[in-house]
Amino acid sequence: MIKIGVIGYGYWGPNLVRNFSGVKNAVVKYVADSRIERLNVVKNIYPAIITTQNVEDLFCDSDLNAILIATPVFGHYELAKKALLSGKHVVIEKPMTATVAEANELIDIAQKNNKVLMVDHTFLYTGAVHKIKQLISTNELGKLNYYDSTRINLGLFQPDVNVVWDLAPHDISILYHLTDERPTSVCATGVAHLNNGMENIAYVTLNFQSNMIAHFSCSWSSPVKIRKILVGGDKKMVLFDDNEITEKVKVYDTGYSAKDDEEKQRILIDYRVGDIFVPKLETKEALAGMANDFVNAIINGTEPVSNWNSGLDVVKVLEAAQQSIKQQGKEIKIL
Amino acid sequence: MIKIGVIGYGYWGPNLVRNFSGVKNAVVKYVADSRIERLNVVKNIYPAIITTQNVEDLFCDSDLNAILIATPVFGHYELAKKALLSGKHVVIEKPMTATVAEANELIDIAQKNNKVLMVDHTFLYTGAVHKIKQLISTNELGKLNYYDSTRINLGLFQPDVNVVWDLAPHDISILYHLTDERPTSVCATGVAHLNNGMENIAYVTLNFQSNMIAHFSCSWSSPVKIRKILVGGDKKMVLFDDNEITEKVKVYDTGYSAKDDEEKQRILIDYRVGDIFVPKLETKEALAGMANDFVNAIINGTEPVSNWNSGLDVVKVLEAAQQSIKQQGKEIKIL
Amino acid sequence: MIKIGVIGYGYWGPNLVRNFSGVKNAVVKYVADSRIERLNVVKNIYPAIITTQNVEDLFCDSDLNAILIATPVFGHYELAKKALLSGKHVVIEKPMTATVAEANELIDIAQKNNKVLMVDHTFLYTGAVHKIKQLISTNELGKLNYYDSTRINLGLFQPDVNVVWDLAPHDISILYHLTDERPTSVCATGVAHLNNGMENIAYVTLNFQSNMIAHFSCSWSSPVKIRKILVGGDKKMVLFDDNEITEKVKVYDTGYSAKDDEEKQRILIDYRVGDIFVPKLETKEALAGMANDFVNAIINGTEPVSNWNSGLDVVKVLEAAQQSIKQQGKEIKIL
Amino acid sequence: MIKIGVIGYGYWGPNLVRNFSGVKNAVVKYVADSRIERLNVVKNIYPAIITTQNVEDLFCDSDLNAILIATPVFGHYELAKKALLSGKHVVIEKPMTATVAEANELIDIAQKNNKVLMVDHTFLYTGAVHKIKQLISTNELGKLNYYDSTRINLGLFQPDVNVVWDLAPHDISILYHLTDERPTSVCATGVAHLNNGMENIAYVTLNFQSNMIAHFSCSWSSPVKIRKILVGGDKKMVLFDDNEITEKVKVYDTGYSAKDDEEKQRILIDYRVGDIFVPKLETKEALAGMANDFVNAIINGTEPVSNWNSGLDVVKVLEAAQQSIKQQGKEIKIL
Repeated sequence: MIKIGVIGYGYWGPNLVRNFSGVKNAVVKYVADSRIERLNVVKNIYPAIITTQNVEDLFCDSDLNAILIATPVFGHYELAKKALLSGKHVVIEKPMTATVAEANELIDIAQKNNKVLMVDHTFLYTGAVHKIKQLISTNELGKLNYYDSTRINLGLFQPDVNVVWDLAPHDISILYHLTDERPTSVCATGVAHLNNGMENIAYVTLNFQSNMIAHFSCSWSSPVKIRKILVGGDKKMVLFDDNEITEKVKVYDTGYSAKDDEEKQRILIDYRVGDIFVPKLETKEALAGMANDFVNAIINGTEPVSNWNSGLDVVKVLEAAQQSIKQQGKEIKIL
Repeated sequence: MIKIGVIGYGYWGPNLVRNFSGVKNAVVKYVADSRIERLNVVKNIYPAIITTQNVEDLFCDSDLNAILIATPVFGHYELAKKALLSGKHVVIEKPMTATVAEANELIDIAQKNNKVLMVDHTFLYTGAVHKIKQLISTNELGKLNYYDSTRINLGLFQPDVNVVWDLAPHDISILYHLTDERPTSVCATGVAHLNNGMENIAYVTLNFQSNMIAHFSCSWSSPVKIRKILVGGDKKMVLFDDNEITEKVKVYDTGYSAKDDEEKQRILIDYRVGDIFVPKLETKEALAGMANDFVNAIINGTEPVSNWNSGLDVVKVLEAAQQSIKQQGKEIKIL
Repeated sequence: MIKIGVIGYGYWGPNLVRNFSGVKNAVVKYVADSRIERLNVVKNIYPAIITTQNVEDLFCDSDLNAILIATPVFGHYELAKKALLSGKHVVIEKPMTATVAEANELIDIAQKNNKVLMVDHTFLYTGAVHKIKQLISTNELGKLNYYDSTRINLGLFQPDVNVVWDLAPHDISILYHLTDERPTSVCATGVAHLNNGMENIAYVTLNFQSNMIAHFSCSWSSPVKIRKILVGGDKKMVLFDDNEITEKVKVYDTGYSAKDDEEKQRILIDYRVGDIFVPKLETKEALAGMANDFVNAIINGTEPVSNWNSGLDVVKVLEAAQQSIKQQGKEIKIL
Repeated sequence: MIKIGVIGYGYWGPNLVRNFSGVKNAVVKYVADSRIERLNVVKNIYPAIITTQNVEDLFCDSDLNAILIATPVFGHYELAKKALLSGKHVVIEKPMTATVAEANELIDIAQKNNKVLMVDHTFLYTGAVHKIKQLISTNELGKLNYYDSTRINLGLFQPDVNVVWDLAPHDISILYHLTDERPTSVCATGVAHLNNGMENIAYVTLNFQSNMIAHFSCSWSSPVKIRKILVGGDKKMVLFDDNEITEKVKVYDTGYSAKDDEEKQRILIDYRVGDIFVPKLETKEALAGMANDFVNAIINGTEPVSNWNSGLDVVKVLEAAQQSIKQQGKEIKIL
């Protein structure tokens, strides 16, 4: 039985506790949070879970196997490091850390101590992403031309990170999951409407060696909630609208191609608009998939989908995007 | 009676002929097009209109008062110059010209010859833009924080301009109409998926002295057609969805503000989500408004809404955006 | 060359003239209307068409082959009878006549005089209905269980017929086109909110020998426009939403079936929710299809899709529905 | 402290337990269900609640104040009667009972024993219904002309009642809450596609002395879920779309009126299409409102909104509708 401690019982913590409670061969032993009122909520619903305001209780309990970190970003590195060094397997909420250096150090420690280290990129476990991945793997979409995401709403302004760090991890992790090609550089712009220097609106373009392009529109300041991703291949295109209940993924048999027109010396375009297909998706909760992936990795030594590389990759792009914003959209290489 | 000649009877020309035919004190005398089959269409519907493959017929007819130019962009400058020099008032389809220098020269000529010179930024005459303009003028939206436009579809690839030149003129002209503040610089990225170097997907950010931001997503390669503009003020926000039939403009009584929280030394945000208001809009055709504005300017010497400054402003931004794209998103000043 | 006269140039007449003008081997020779201002509109657009306020001009012209009747319903019978007796082929706007007796008489006359007599049930020529018909013919939907239509908006109250006569002809003609089974009886309810005894809201149920059911919700008093038809088979179900631009027809791989559960003596239901398929539809204008069907019938003696039987069938149901409404929903047999 | 027992922990029971657990001065003491696996779920989440397979435990516990009945309809009467006779206050899930006679008897017993007897018509406690009620009370809608509801989806076929008994109680209770006028009769049609004689599709018209009309479309056999209610007044009209997240209620400043036209002796209609208003609604959970209403009624003797009259009224209409269906739509008086 894998015994798990959860640090942070704010917005996401309850989802972690609920989902890990449902995993076979796992049990949630602790919830730690500095706020006594949050711990009281835990006690009410889960009387068997030990609650504490002292995270050291978790690190010191040699019976505990794993720790889930669901705190604000700035604390991720410190807590994950302690957890790993005290011999625990670790899941960190996205984004993994506040810097690439921190992420690299955590990976080093995990590697040396032979521990599982994951980041909770929940979208990688959704039926929608599974389906789009499959459409790409089977070459139904053809060569990818673009990935375009709009992720806006009246958001909970985060105290310690800007809107890119809050929202773009979803898109970066999905994009990297869908294709093996990696962006060479990023150009990003944004604006902070409050006096704290944290951008609440930002736009990120990822450039690729091939002529693929990726773009993320991120905003905490929209009166409407939009969650739309377009993935365009040279054969077909996909719309993933996460606001839809039953038609989240639509596959468009749509495209265009240039044809020669030597006489007139101009480009003629052949357009094709065909059927639309709305595949039925798996409906199990994505977070349950992540929870099982983690416990399997511990027990069976499997490689989790949302592994540390995924976590590191996301932070690399975030850090570069932040630099680009601060330098008025200057192109920043992604190393 | 103002006598009008139309050059170009392709996609937009028929709309011009139809709308100017309905203007009091104006009549369409000529339609010129190099394609005989297009002229036959004119003859069929409007037997009273003279058709010609030779544009010089229009310039030479001293009885003709005005010329509408609805050809591809690269021909705008040459045709407008000849029209003005032959003493005609001129309307040019958007964008006005292919370069700022050309636009400046046309304005000079018009000024010296005392001719009306307009650009057909049709959106400035829509009920939707009128309503949003009014909401801003009466300070109902408060100080503007952002303008965010998504203008994508499976588009008709233009032979001589990229997607920014095709689609962004709408947004630039609307934005400039809504606010007096002018952007100081532009950052833009894009990609060309065909071998002609013409971007079919592009993203444009406009930067302002105040902390306003504007962004346009432009694409000819989307399987779905989206025409959405969000305008965010610090009091209210507006969504203009041009795909909607009856609910094009929605006004959200939505906002947020920072409040002090000295003790905890972090920012607390007050969110406000209130009623939504969907105003009834004027329903008369926008292009009829433009046509009347032009004829009035000729007859009464009034200043048209979509005047040459509007045309020049748009080309300035387009030229800068193009430079930015070609330099990997480098910030380009707008002079 | 088939020479055609159109009687009535109100809401639908212009569409008839435009579409028949495009038919090979046909030409519109006359438009008749009592309103001089409507005839002026015709002259302006189609200077070659003869306009008249006297319908007798059409009946007397032995050179004229066919007459299209697009007047209010109460005049259909009289005009069609005269047209047939003067040797013309005839298309009547839906509904064919104001009574079953009138429809039968017209059919008799057409038959004896060997003339084509059609009713303009335009929907039968849409890509959407063609696709649904094909799905049923190939047994993809399975046995039909229901047809459910909602056809409501803020409508143009008709002066001489109630909302059932105005809107239900679409659904009756579609339903009869899709299936060979005929309803045995009708139950209908409705209400008239103006003082003229004409129902502006009505609900019609058609009963069938098999356990199929059809229902039409008709209203001129809705603030929103809805045009939705659900067709349920025991294999798959179809939604036809005519308000949609690009996704008018959706095919749901959805169903349920009862399975035995002898032990518990209750019914267990197996539900199935699968993929959704949005077929690309033909995009040519439906009315052009009707126009060609009529001219082909005249020239080649083919049987038109929207033939007199279709017209008569619709009037039979309308007459029975009206009786039912006037008798508080009493079941009325359809003969 | 009001001590509460819940009978039935199927689909709705968990919602009752959760909401009543949050009511001040109330506590859930028991959950009874015949299925041991359902009781285990309760134990897991609420270790303090006593679970039992024997409902008599609840009736016999003189310390228990109230019982909530969330079982299939056919058991409502028997259980509620025992509960009332054992001195408990009672809430019954909708519909109250399977017959009018049963409902009347329960009311008699409650009255004689001075007990609170409610039916859980949850919609009466939603922000949407509150808002519509207010729009009617302040005469903003004017005189009501119609109530039109579409309530369809791929439903859970109920074992003991047809689709009208399952879905129409929502609409009947809402309609009766919104207006004081009562229908005089009902006409209903329907069809049963399974072999158990239970209609899975049905249409119900309610007739009123004034020229108001109400209609409910009910189906368990639709591939799409629709939850739309239109309420039309002679001043304004309301659309309540329960599938919408943020725009559930829209108020249309839309209408029409007849004007005299003596000369032409026909009716002219003035149409009015104006602004649309989307009011912000209360967002607290409706069921919590019902729970508080019940506990207040017990403690303070207040009259609950969803009282026994509401329960009885609904059953009267259901019983009449069922008779009408079985007699092919015959008009059945509502007594």
